[in-house]
Amino acid sequence: MMLSDDDIALSHALADVAGQAIRPFFRARFEIDTKSDQSPVTEADRAAEAAMRRLIEAERPMDGIIGEEYGEKPGVSGRIWVLDPIDGTRSFIAGRPIFGTLIAMLGEGWPLLGVIDQPIGKERWAGAVGRKTTFNGKPVTTRACTGLDKAILATTGPQYFSPHAAEHFSVLAAHCGDTLFGGDCYNYGLCASGHVDLVVESGLKLYDFAALVPIVEGAGGRMCDWSGEPLDQDSKGDVIAAGDPARVEEICEALAHRH
Amino acid sequence: MMLSDDDIALSHALADVAGQAIRPFFRARFEIDTKSDQSPVTEADRAAEAAMRRLIEAERPMDGIIGEEYGEKPGVSGRIWVLDPIDGTRSFIAGRPIFGTLIAMLGEGWPLLGVIDQPIGKERWAGAVGRKTTFNGKPVTTRACTGLDKAILATTGPQYFSPHAAEHFSVLAAHCGDTLFGGDCYNYGLCASGHVDLVVESGLKLYDFAALVPIVEGAGGRMCDWSGEPLDQDSKGDVIAAGDPARVEEICEALAHRH
Repeated sequence: MMLSDDDIALSHALADVAGQAIRPFFRARFEIDTKSDQSPVTEADRAAEAAMRRLIEAERPMDGIIGEEYGEKPGVSGRIWVLDPIDGTRSFIAGRPIFGTLIAMLGEGWPLLGVIDQPIGKERWAGAVGRKTTFNGKPVTTRACTGLDKAILATTGPQYFSPHAAEHFSVLAAHCGDTLFGGDCYNYGLCASGHVDLVVESGLKLYDFAALVPIVEGAGGRMCDWSGEPLDQDSKGDVIAAGDPARVEEICEALAHRH
Repeated sequence: MMLSDDDIALSHALADVAGQAIRPFFRARFEIDTKSDQSPVTEADRAAEAAMRRLIEAERPMDGIIGEEYGEKPGVSGRIWVLDPIDGTRSFIAGRPIFGTLIAMLGEGWPLLGVIDQPIGKERWAGAVGRKTTFNGKPVTTRACTGLDKAILATTGPQYFSPHAAEHFSVLAAHCGDTLFGGDCYNYGLCASGHVDLVVESGLKLYDFAALVPIVEGAGGRMCDWSGEPLDQDSKGDVIAAGDPARVEEICEALAHRH
């Protein structure tokens, strides 16, 4: 399946409508509910996903949709839009301007394009298969990393690893130069832009990681699971983003051990 | 010792010159060194502190200065300016716009005014004894917290606690509704603005915490050490910021235990 300029234009339009829906709620009062997996969801998450779904249904009635808040709508075109209206809802609730709207389009189960949009700082990373990743319209590249001991590793929080995964993560962290917590999808954007070397997380859902793949890879990095396998619709969500693909083997090696 | 309007005007001018010094380095290339405590320091930290010191020396030759990067200059006025040019240097290096410049003025060892300035997002919290804390010039207040089980607790990272302190922190975290990692001084600003209920850290230096005290307290919150004692020049840097002072006793109680 080929990607069209129209697909890319629609992904930007989706980020625009999501941002318009989210901005009025930032640092304002809003309803917060707790989902069955104990994660929070706000009025802003729902308003942003609803706005994006309306636009897709109007422009692309044949495309499928998988959204964090409103579930799956099957399509017939082979294209599936994957939406996370607010990745980092906890960060959004606390008033930090480093959450993001994630938009991906899958073709035959593979992420073909991705957007990370930060609607408060008005920062947008956009990636697509075969194209150079951009940050606010300008091309970005990951940076070289000559050794893990010099790497900045980022992850959202120690509590998001299972006890088992945490043991493996801690082996990797001990090899790295520095570990930075917090950040959600924003860490992957910073990896694409060459400010962070490595992001490692576990238990992500499709809507958490699909958009990140074309962004990191189109900037020269590599995304894969903890075994080094590429990420598709069926991956179980243990992810690695490496700015320098030359480090992937060592990263997988470190993650295979535990204390 | 009384605080004057001139003191407050100078604190804002200091934040302005620090921001001017820092902005050109953000997400650009810069030198990074490692200090004796293994923490990183950049050209931006040094340039911002140097700019602030020049301004204090020009405007207030009799005042003392304590700065993270360039040490102590004794004064004779009884006023001491306490400077942390970039609190959250790791976050700055990774390109996150949630680090901050911290400026405090002490009188007789007590923090009388404080500024947290985020020069990329152009966000500034300012507090002073006897005055209402402001965010970008508008008054802010902390929020009520009816129980720790509903509290958002923030802290920069698990690795900044000693193993002993980490055990006590984990008891508190288990009582709280949610724990958010990352953030440095920005968490205390969000506490003053009523988006975060509680910030707990350990091992902070005077320049890390002095500015925070008038900001959190002038917004209606309380800052103290882990025993509930007020923070002054000689405090050892185990700090609590509570948006709702009614929760301080429970917080200290939880921190007194360990698993």
